[in-house]
Amino acid sequence: MSGNNIFYAQSGGVTAVINASACGVIETARSYPELGKVYAGRNGIIGALREELIDTSLESVDAIAALRHTPSGAFGSCRYKLKGIEENRAEYERLIEVFRAHAIGYFFYNGGGDSQDTANKVSQFSKSMDYPITCIGIPKTVDNDLPITDNCPGFGSVAKYVAVSIREAGLDVASMCESSTKVFVLEVMGRHAGWIAGAAGLAAEQEGDAPHVIVFPEIPFDKSAFLAKVKSSVDKYGYCAIVVSEGAHYEDGTFLADQGTRDAFGHAQLGGVAPTLANMVKDELGYKYHWAVSDYLQRAARHIASGTDVEQAYAMGKAAVEFAVAGKNAVMPTIVRESSAPYKWRIGEANLGDVANVEKKMPRDFITEDGFGITASAREYFAPLILGEDYPPYHNGLPDYARLQKTLAAKKLPAWQEK
Amino acid sequence: MSGNNIFYAQSGGVTAVINASACGVIETARSYPELGKVYAGRNGIIGALREELIDTSLESVDAIAALRHTPSGAFGSCRYKLKGIEENRAEYERLIEVFRAHAIGYFFYNGGGDSQDTANKVSQFSKSMDYPITCIGIPKTVDNDLPITDNCPGFGSVAKYVAVSIREAGLDVASMCESSTKVFVLEVMGRHAGWIAGAAGLAAEQEGDAPHVIVFPEIPFDKSAFLAKVKSSVDKYGYCAIVVSEGAHYEDGTFLADQGTRDAFGHAQLGGVAPTLANMVKDELGYKYHWAVSDYLQRAARHIASGTDVEQAYAMGKAAVEFAVAGKNAVMPTIVRESSAPYKWRIGEANLGDVANVEKKMPRDFITEDGFGITASAREYFAPLILGEDYPPYHNGLPDYARLQKTLAAKKLPAWQEK
Repeated sequence: MSGNNIFYAQSGGVTAVINASACGVIETARSYPELGKVYAGRNGIIGALREELIDTSLESVDAIAALRHTPSGAFGSCRYKLKGIEENRAEYERLIEVFRAHAIGYFFYNGGGDSQDTANKVSQFSKSMDYPITCIGIPKTVDNDLPITDNCPGFGSVAKYVAVSIREAGLDVASMCESSTKVFVLEVMGRHAGWIAGAAGLAAEQEGDAPHVIVFPEIPFDKSAFLAKVKSSVDKYGYCAIVVSEGAHYEDGTFLADQGTRDAFGHAQLGGVAPTLANMVKDELGYKYHWAVSDYLQRAARHIASGTDVEQAYAMGKAAVEFAVAGKNAVMPTIVRESSAPYKWRIGEANLGDVANVEKKMPRDFITEDGFGITASAREYFAPLILGEDYPPYHNGLPDYARLQKTLAAKKLPAWQEK
Repeated sequence: MSGNNIFYAQSGGVTAVINASACGVIETARSYPELGKVYAGRNGIIGALREELIDTSLESVDAIAALRHTPSGAFGSCRYKLKGIEENRAEYERLIEVFRAHAIGYFFYNGGGDSQDTANKVSQFSKSMDYPITCIGIPKTVDNDLPITDNCPGFGSVAKYVAVSIREAGLDVASMCESSTKVFVLEVMGRHAGWIAGAAGLAAEQEGDAPHVIVFPEIPFDKSAFLAKVKSSVDKYGYCAIVVSEGAHYEDGTFLADQGTRDAFGHAQLGGVAPTLANMVKDELGYKYHWAVSDYLQRAARHIASGTDVEQAYAMGKAAVEFAVAGKNAVMPTIVRESSAPYKWRIGEANLGDVANVEKKMPRDFITEDGFGITASAREYFAPLILGEDYPPYHNGLPDYARLQKTLAAKKLPAWQEK
């Protein structure tokens, strides 16, 4: 046993419910006397390298409980991917050195595929350093693209946000279309998978409801088919509400809106496909348009979080601690769907090696044959994930989100020499 | 007395609570036996010209009650401004002809300054036609730019939406800024007045809270002062959350983002100032950025409506009917603030002639001296308007908004010849 303290870190793009997982970890860890302190990395894994460990034992019970209803990463997250062990052995050695210095025997990494890969490597490497660390992944991604788990915490809330938003904006356009805006375009996240865009389709419950057109990254963009669909919607309903995934692209792979910039992982930074599509509609069909890009608003929208999502995010954090206490290692709790209606799910388990760096795309049979809508199978899958409202408390008319002390543990090691 | 039926019409850009005013009108009118049917214009005043009158007496009690929690204009709105009587006497004659044919003695016009002007003209013109119509305005505009009334129904909810949104997105950026996005720009509505942008400032309750910079249309844009403010925020807090009004412009009046298109009123159709500012920050300061344009989402966001706003919108509709029954004419109910803390308000009254075509700007003393924030006076004014949550009911995880029959009354006149 290497030590009974825990290191918890948030990784990658944050969500409306990642702190609910943190809440699950910390509250559950506090209930096990055999576990020590939970240290949270300040700004994720960077906090471990820099030995910036937030001592969560100094946070009040109320502050930790408030994490359940607080969006974003309360301890800070980062876009920082550890390289392969061969390429940068020093980083892994530093991690183990910091863990050893603070009697940390458990590493809970709350992130997507890249993070589960890192957690898996740390688990393996720690044995070779003769300081074995129990590494448990906690799933998190608004993109819903992790394999094995039925869905990812974070997704249900962004799904609810986009479905609510396109329903509301759709009603707005419907009421104005006779003499004003006829086409509305909402751009949503989803770089390579159309899960978020697809979930927006839940808003269309009856013939004529928004959204009328969904543009998926799974289907190469066909301009003339798109314009024909928009025109047909305007002819039939008087207006057209469109949801487009940021990852929408042409047959040759070119994104409709590639800003040309790249993030730390080398991924293209996208944005601006909504105005691109809106202008296309204006130029070719002449309709007056409006467009919205919700960007971070969608993944931070704790005010309209899915109750199911909050519950599952908390449960994943709790399960991670229970897995660790049970002696499991290099695994991640998963969500296993037992039935869709009524919705029943339980906690399962996946090996980190099986989760790492596998991107789950939406099944083709979730998308209608014409490529612009969702099927009954998709509805069955998405519907339970947005169920339930879990409103945060309000103060002065605004959500009363957690404010933490974030006191750092005293450093014991020389400063980390960043490259 | 010209007839005891009522014509109600929604006008201009819709809001999260304009239907709450409709609900107030219809429910209250149903309680007065001396009043006849409430006809709602299909797509606003256009519905009167075309003799497309939705017979609300055919809608169930439940459907009318659901209007209180339904955003957008349930009967349809329009951007259609009646010209002056001299320029287009035929339109006014047609209105009176339709009103006469359907025994309509009351005209309730739910809109902004342009609409109050129209209601006032109809009131005057109807006397000259020997068919006097009682015309009552019902205030509505997300822009909060009507004079006399302390605030406008519709504004409190968009204010709450933008304050909640920038708080949430601000937390997101705060958690990512160490290694990723440092600057976030949220574009909000407000063509000539910065009320909406200003209200977003409520989210900043403690030192360092988002938003850190607000760009108002009242203050000519000074690029170097803006960039210095952004840099100072990033230096101090690690990130900078910016709210910019769509109407932000340079000293010479050029909008930061003028798309070059014009609406029916000749107003510039704006959009895209957020990416403009974000790119400016990237080019000059090199920070990684994200931006969002909430567009219609902000004014349709009934899911996070202000309880105060819903209550006032309903009260304005109710007061309009009571004014009419009391024999008043060419007036508009207003909101009179009696105290800010605790918030107390009552219903007042304004002459339509005093409301029409006057645009109320934000007082200069609501904006901090540097031009990028709000003062204590502004906070005192804004704070009560976002108080209270008035959640709609949900079904299948989505807001359960009203679905009306919208049955048209049988036409009695020849078709209107539109120009």
